[in-house]
Order: sequence, then structure tokens, then C-alpha cells
Amino acid sequence: MEFSSKLLEKAVSEMSQLPGIGKRTALRLVLHLLKQPKEQTDFLTQALTNMRNDIKFCKNCHNISDIEVCEICANPSRNYKIICVVEDVRDVMAIENTGQFRGIYHVLGGKISPIDGIGPSQLNVASLVEKVKAGNVEEIIFALSSTMEGDTTNFYIYKQIKDSGVTTSSIARGISVGDELEYADEVTLGRSIVNRIPFENSLRNI
Amino acid sequence: MEFSSKLLEKAVSEMSQLPGIGKRTALRLVLHLLKQPKEQTDFLTQALTNMRNDIKFCKNCHNISDIEVCEICANPSRNYKIICVVEDVRDVMAIENTGQFRGIYHVLGGKISPIDGIGPSQLNVASLVEKVKAGNVEEIIFALSSTMEGDTTNFYIYKQIKDSGVTTSSIARGISVGDELEYADEVTLGRSIVNRIPFENSLRNI
Ligand SMILES: [Zn+2]
Ligand SMILES: [Zn+2]
Repeated sequence: MEFSSKLLEKAVSEMSQLPGIGKRTALRLVLHLLKQPKEQTDFLTQALTNMRNDIKFCKNCHNISDIEVCEICANPSRNYKIICVVEDVRDVMAIENTGQFRGIYHVLGGKISPIDGIGPSQLNVASLVEKVKAGNVEEIIFALSSTMEGDTTNFYIYKQIKDSGVTTSSIARGISVGDELEYADEVTLGRSIVNRIPFENSLRNI
Repeated sequence: MEFSSKLLEKAVSEMSQLPGIGKRTALRLVLHLLKQPKEQTDFLTQALTNMRNDIKFCKNCHNISDIEVCEICANPSRNYKIICVVEDVRDVMAIENTGQFRGIYHVLGGKISPIDGIGPSQLNVASLVEKVKAGNVEEIIFALSSTMEGDTTNFYIYKQIKDSGVTTSSIARGISVGDELEYADEVTLGRSIVNRIPFENSLRNI
């Protein structure tokens, strides 16, 4: 692509760093910004800058938050003894949206994936194991996507906590194997939380 | 969508103002930025801000440019008497990429579209008609997408310049009717420039 402007080329180049955004899509997006009032670009860049600079992660569950302890962890009506383990904030949003879960979360920040160079130390695994070993947890619900990486991650954590007497469960696989959690419909996802099964029973899939 | 962070919500909301970017895609994009070093967000926002604030439009052809007169118009080896009329900068890039055209361009900035409230006065039509009437133009090549709006725009301009003695032509419709110009392959687009036909002959399509 030959650009008539370095400013345009640079904007397209940076925009196309985003995942799933090719050069052509990036060009379409920045040309759209050029046609809009300057304020729209200002609002976008300011919102991204503020988010990137000021966002916090809940020091209890690692969920994205504007404050030190997220609203879920700070809510006294939640059951702190039931912890739902998820991959990222989108899964928290998806499960919250079902209205079926009154425990709290633990956000791992990803899945174990040797191919991508992601091991347990890049994820929030140690703090979860610590919480369980400290003894105030009754149940750990595994709610990762049912992919090879999700199953590996579940199992890795399971091995470290199974002797601590905590109940482990896995959300019911009403969700098709291989599907991403965040795209599941509310009813299916809600039911899979309610009908969770002992973690041992879910090992058949591996 | 229930967000655990206002900063995240605001970033997603601004990102999803972009055309074709829904809330879910926007969330995926901003979460990606959160996982990258801060610099990536800075580079992106700076590139967009610089582009929006400092970009210029060539005062001759209205192409996007970093300088007052774009590189094409400033190139003495181009034939200034042959003007190719296009919708936007993507079409200039597409035609330049074929290496088949040595004239200059006139960028309209869109097409006449009554449904979208876009009339000739929102486009760079008057300056094109003026150029032709000033008498230094030998040929006008219409290279808008072959859609209803493109045909309407071509015809609107044609009516105003047909009595001035200028030759009018239309790029050959090797490109399927209804297809956007920018997605055409180089060879087809190059050939359609070389095999352009008298504009009158293209009116059959209307
Ligand atoms: Zn929290
Ligand atoms: Zn120019």
C-alpha cells in the first residue's frame, strides 16, 4: 500500500497492530475518523489513554477494576467461600450477566499454553492456591473454556488443591466443547453454573 | 454489558463508535491493549491525534496529503490535462498501484446520496467543474464505483461539463457492477483505466 501521507500511513500502521484488524480495515477506520469532528478522535484517544494508565486489577480476584478491591469482592452479600475460576474479565461479565452466581471470582488472566509460551507463572495461579490453602474456601468452580488449554489449566490447579479438602466442581458442559465461554447464551451459561458437577467427573473429557 | 470498570466501559464505548466495530469486538481490542506494554497504546493514540490534527487535503485535487499540494499534483511528469475523478483516497491508492495512469486525480470525498443527505455541495464537485470551465482539461475520466450513487454522481457532473468540449470517459467495466473499486485486483483495475470508453457509451447502465 502506497500512502499519500505519512501521517495517514502511521495511523493505519498503528491501528493494524490490533488483533484481527488488517491494513484495509485500519484504513477504513482512520478515514472514518477524518470525516468526523475532531472531538471524536479526542474522545477515543483520551478514553484509551485513561484506561491504559489508570486501570487497576482487584487485589483479591484480579478482575479489572477502578478501585483496589472490585465491586464484586467488596459486596458483603456475595459468598466468599465459593470461588469461580475464569480466564479473563469477559468471562466474569458473561457469568454476572446470568444472575445465577452469588460467589466470587478468581481471574487467571489466560490459560496455560506451552505453544504460546504461557506457563502457570504468567498466570494468577499461585494466589489461588494460597487462598485455598489458607482454608477459607469451600468450593472452587472451574469455568474455563472447554479447550485443550482450559482442561490443562484446570487440571494443573486441581492437582495442587485436591488434598486441601476443598470441593472442586466444573461448570456443566451444556456449552459445546471448543466454544469460547463469552459467546454462550445466558440461559445455557446460567444453567451450567447451577448444574455444576464434581471436578473428578469432568476428567472424562481429557 | 455490565462492566466492572468505568474506564474500561468508556474505552469500549468510544472504540465501538468506529464503523463495523461492535461492543464485543471493541472489548476484545481494548483488552488486547491492556495486555500489551503501555507504549503500544501511546503509539496508537499519538498517531491518531497527529493524523487528525495535522493532515491536509491537497488544494488542487483534495487528496489526503502532508503538504499543501500532494506529491501527485506536484509531479511534473504527470499529465495535468487528464483528470481521473474518484470517490476517496483509497481509490487514488488503488489506481496508483496499477501503475497504468499518468494523469492526475480529483477526489470528490464521497458520492451523491440523497438517502444519506449527501448532495453535490457536500462534495468537491464545484471545484472540478471550475477546473474544466477554465479550459485546461482535455479529458475527465469517471472512476467512481459502479453503484446507483456512483452513476448518479457521474451523471450530475457530466451534465455540467458536457458543453465545455472536454472529453469524458468512464473506466471500463471489467469490474463487476456493484463492487467497490478498492477491492478490485490490480490487473483488472489497470485494464479498466487503459480501456476506458466514451462516457456516453457507459450510460446504458443507468
Ligand atoms: Zn475482586
Ligand atoms: Zn493533489
